Amino acid sequence: MDAPTNGPRERRAPNPQRRSERAHRAILDATAELVGEVGYAKLTMEAIAARAKVGKQTIYRWWPSKAAVVLDVFERRTGTPGDPLPDTGDLAADLRTVLYATVDEFTDPETDRVARAFTAEIQHDPDLAATVTERLTRPNNEAFRERLRAARDAGQLDPDIGLDLALELLTGPITQRWLTRTAPLTHAYVDELLAAALRALGPR
Amino acid sequence: MDAPTNGPRERRAPNPQRRSERAHRAILDATAELVGEVGYAKLTMEAIAARAKVGKQTIYRWWPSKAAVVLDVFERRTGTPGDPLPDTGDLAADLRTVLYATVDEFTDPETDRVARAFTAEIQHDPDLAATVTERLTRPNNEAFRERLRAARDAGQLDPDIGLDLALELLTGPITQRWLTRTAPLTHAYVDELLAAALRALGPR
Repeated sequence: MDAPTNGPRERRAPNPQRRSERAHRAILDATAELVGEVGYAKLTMEAIAARAKVGKQTIYRWWPSKAAVVLDVFERRTGTPGDPLPDTGDLAADLRTVLYATVDEFTDPETDRVARAFTAEIQHDPDLAATVTERLTRPNNEAFRERLRAARDAGQLDPDIGLDLALELLTGPITQRWLTRTAPLTHAYVDELLAAALRALGPR
Repeated sequence: MDAPTNGPRERRAPNPQRRSERAHRAILDATAELVGEVGYAKLTMEAIAARAKVGKQTIYRWWPSKAAVVLDVFERRTGTPGDPLPDTGDLAADLRTVLYATVDEFTDPETDRVARAFTAEIQHDPDLAATVTERLTRPNNEAFRERLRAARDAGQLDPDIGLDLALELLTGPITQRWLTRTAPLTHAYVDELLAAALRALGPR
């Protein structure tokens, strides 16, 4: 049995890096909970610090603003915005992978909560709207268009269809169903959507 | 020159029906302005009454709640929810009429303001979300599906495509573009969308 003073260094005092990782995770967890409880507008750095049991200055070490923390909560579930889509050469299979992941994300309670908080807030907060566009929407859309552009160059898409419209035909129905909650978002729905959308987009 | 006391009755005292119509319109105008200025959550019947220069009881004569007034502001621009779509037998032409009107509505500042206020608020107000679904989304979607059903029965649509998906392919891209403000909503966009969506939905 090791006496504490004889143990390796990380037994004697918590490893600073591990402590730092724990604080980082606690802040993101606290933010995710609070966004669900009080909404984005009423969320404060003070409340996040209290819930995460850290000092406010610890939050500011990593994040300049509330929007930045909440964006990171979103991204830890959805991956880095702008990451390239898979490209196996099989457009339908690659889009299926991506859109399955999209509906999984939007049916995940934490992601759903943050996405709804953003959706609410960007309607009347132009600064947050600009941040979300720049950090999430624009890079994600560009990565999506990039995959469609490769497919178009390979002759798999009708060259006369705009890439913006192609993106919107593939993702707009999911956005609308999520927004209006009219029917469940399932993988079977993605399959049905994909078959129809690719018929619209394929070479004539 | 008529002296006031000799004029017809409506010259001597305001016609009660006309007064009532003026109050009704003043309340809707005041609500439309206030939704834009303070948002839905902070809108109060008191503020509407003050802006419209009527008593609060006048508002309650016609509307049981704030949600009901705001829904009427929306409807005076968009028409009665659930009204049947045109049916000339030419599906593409009828959808073009409807979707042109949709983008006109969503680029109208008053409708845009109210729609964004609802979009924000239904993310965290389940009662309002239920009211909007029941009063707007469900009847409008049912009218839309009804027109698509007629087209399907006439052999103009692929019988294997679900009417919900058909509706979402035709309207989801518009909703998403409106929500994310990524590009302008124009009639030319409707034309492009319609051509592509009908290719997805047409008989094989």
